[in-house]
Amino acid sequence: MIIIGEKINGTIPSVRKAIEEKDEAFIRELAVKQAEAGADYIDVCAGTAPEVEEETLKWLMEIVQDAVDKPLCIDSPNPRTIEKVFKYARKPGIINSVSEEKNKCEILYPLIQGTEWQVIGLTCDNDGIPSDVEKRISIAKILVEKADKYGISPDRIHIDPLVIALATDNDAVRKFVEALEGIKKMFPNVKITSGLSNVSFGLPYRKALNQVFLTVAVFAGMDSAIMDPTNRDMMTALYAAEAISGKDRFCRKYLNAYRKGIIGPAKEH
Amino acid sequence: MIIIGEKINGTIPSVRKAIEEKDEAFIRELAVKQAEAGADYIDVCAGTAPEVEEETLKWLMEIVQDAVDKPLCIDSPNPRTIEKVFKYARKPGIINSVSEEKNKCEILYPLIQGTEWQVIGLTCDNDGIPSDVEKRISIAKILVEKADKYGISPDRIHIDPLVIALATDNDAVRKFVEALEGIKKMFPNVKITSGLSNVSFGLPYRKALNQVFLTVAVFAGMDSAIMDPTNRDMMTALYAAEAISGKDRFCRKYLNAYRKGIIGPAKEH
Repeated sequence: MIIIGEKINGTIPSVRKAIEEKDEAFIRELAVKQAEAGADYIDVCAGTAPEVEEETLKWLMEIVQDAVDKPLCIDSPNPRTIEKVFKYARKPGIINSVSEEKNKCEILYPLIQGTEWQVIGLTCDNDGIPSDVEKRISIAKILVEKADKYGISPDRIHIDPLVIALATDNDAVRKFVEALEGIKKMFPNVKITSGLSNVSFGLPYRKALNQVFLTVAVFAGMDSAIMDPTNRDMMTALYAAEAISGKDRFCRKYLNAYRKGIIGPAKEH
Repeated sequence: MIIIGEKINGTIPSVRKAIEEKDEAFIRELAVKQAEAGADYIDVCAGTAPEVEEETLKWLMEIVQDAVDKPLCIDSPNPRTIEKVFKYARKPGIINSVSEEKNKCEILYPLIQGTEWQVIGLTCDNDGIPSDVEKRISIAKILVEKADKYGISPDRIHIDPLVIALATDNDAVRKFVEALEGIKKMFPNVKITSGLSNVSFGLPYRKALNQVFLTVAVFAGMDSAIMDPTNRDMMTALYAAEAISGKDRFCRKYLNAYRKGIIGPAKEH
């Protein structure tokens, strides 16, 4: 499982405060803790007003890259912003994200053409998130086929089938799994990714729902997740889910994580 | 989900002690607590030497039936013992279990012919638990077809595809799910059941593995489970898994369980 650490996001109140106060130490600590906990990439999202997004992202990118050796996942709803801050990345990471909204692909694919950068592709378009599975699969197909024109191979693309809130659609997770399976069938080398918290929006004790969603998604073949690697319960579910999925030979990773104290009884609730 | 409460089992040291000391209050409390926590059936297993099994089972059955209104799940490796204690059951419950070992079906099916009793059928035979999925499905087929001769309909049969320890076979859960799917395809009305703890045998922090196994099994369509309903973490995983499986309309059961305090942050670890 490829873990994209989600914690440096300006829409989170404590992070927004750190951004406003230029609190470098706070951001640095979030980067270090996520890297230590097992993040493979560190997501950076400014979440600020558009006019200061570029400088904020640049500031976050510098701090994270000075603090840890992990590649970035550059996260913005605005492809022009990503285009502008791209040059501050010191090594190939992930662009978060393209979709079939407006001309995102046309702006961002040329940026990573001929590089080792990867990209997250959301299965939505100018009409929003399709409620049916087939439409999501067809958007994934367009995203992968457009990428091919720029020499971006499927294994560099993480498709996010966009699980919606269970409170809105009781079949949200079934649809996610069906979309995952449909996309994998079409493009076996495409990676499937997801955030873990949308599914539980509007329901109580969200962590329980997020954990079982992660479990089912891992078993179904999800390759990467945008998550909080410092969440011990979630990491426990992740290692356990990989073990029961048959993806962890001799349960070695599970055993190692237990021995190192990465998983095990939660320390707090 | 049909919950078969597993706690009154003489192979558990505290229960064995209670049996030896004829501690009725201890057994009664286990029955009441499981019923209150949501058990639909109360499993009773003597786990004693064969010569005292019958009297022990009878003793357990009387205590449980005096204490709670739930039907029993009569559990013995010896079909002759079940045959003898069957008459002490005050209402139809579940026989645990038949399999293709020796003449279990031939002894126990006539016993429940023309009744409302249900039966658990294990997919093993005189050669033990088959490692391949096809063989397990074929045993399930024999168990269901034999039952039909006694007028026992598929919806009265809980087939247990016998998940083995992940430490022994990394594909144990995949095989369980494949067997479940194969059996459901053949007999849509057959119920699938399982114990939850064998999967984690020999590995540390077993509860994490048991929970993710339960999650995946529920999502795949498991109908009943032999489990500890007083285990709050496991019940939380169960309600959450049913919600994400689309089996809990408007997440009502999940919301109710939360409001009643049945699920939520664990109180102890």
